[in-house]
Amino acid sequence: MGGPSSDKTRLVRFIDAVWNTGDVAAVDHYIADAYTLHHDPGDPWDGQVLDRAAYKDRLRRSRAPFPDQRFAIRDLVAEPGRVVMTWQWTATHRGDLPGFPATGRTIRMSGATVYYVDDGWFTGHWQIADRLGVYGQLRQGRVPDS
Amino acid sequence: MGGPSSDKTRLVRFIDAVWNTGDVAAVDHYIADAYTLHHDPGDPWDGQVLDRAAYKDRLRRSRAPFPDQRFAIRDLVAEPGRVVMTWQWTATHRGDLPGFPATGRTIRMSGATVYYVDDGWFTGHWQIADRLGVYGQLRQGRVPDS
Repeated sequence: MGGPSSDKTRLVRFIDAVWNTGDVAAVDHYIADAYTLHHDPGDPWDGQVLDRAAYKDRLRRSRAPFPDQRFAIRDLVAEPGRVVMTWQWTATHRGDLPGFPATGRTIRMSGATVYYVDDGWFTGHWQIADRLGVYGQLRQGRVPDS
Repeated sequence: MGGPSSDKTRLVRFIDAVWNTGDVAAVDHYIADAYTLHHDPGDPWDGQVLDRAAYKDRLRRSRAPFPDQRFAIRDLVAEPGRVVMTWQWTATHRGDLPGFPATGRTIRMSGATVYYVDDGWFTGHWQIADRLGVYGQLRQGRVPDS
């Protein structure tokens, strides 16, 4: 299947269906049997290889505290075999996180992800997100501890 | 000048001369008159437009606490007008940072940067670095505050 331009189109559809809408069944249309989180510091699944069932579990658990989350794609840069996506993420903090009970606050995060693609299937990613920025937003309004 | 392949070559030389070696004069060979930090959360110059003198000041101040810093380039993905670089950075923490006096410790950071290029000149960037990971490394060994 198709090359960098087609890979970009697939990635836009994948992000919309799977991560923005939370359509768990759509994982089967985009994610390879073995999906590797090559690098994703701060993500609980960093370094793991996931089958589709495990990927769906990660999707459900990641979205649970932020059910209205949206990735707004800022730019896509592709070469054969990989698409880099830069993004801005927005969500309402509706569920508990470790150390941070639900605040109802709007949280924003930016990041960059390299998606690896083989014949149209996403086989893994390498990702950096501004988690220090999120940490600052979650701490706002708490009693300072230093 | 040259297109994505030539832009990649220029970027590799720029990172080596300017950021790894700390050759301040080399800025004149790579950086445009007006260089925009479109997005770089946590960087003190985030959002600013720098002329070459200001870029050199940023270079000197950023390198001062980490004089042996090295960016190891992990991957480059380019299209006309931009090159995405993913990287791993390593440095010894030899100078004081706000809240963190020099520790002598080896610090590691990963990140992704989109460099914008016009006729071979770098005109700005959009960057995410794993600053939460660095924060954790700097805090190690300090008395826990929470």
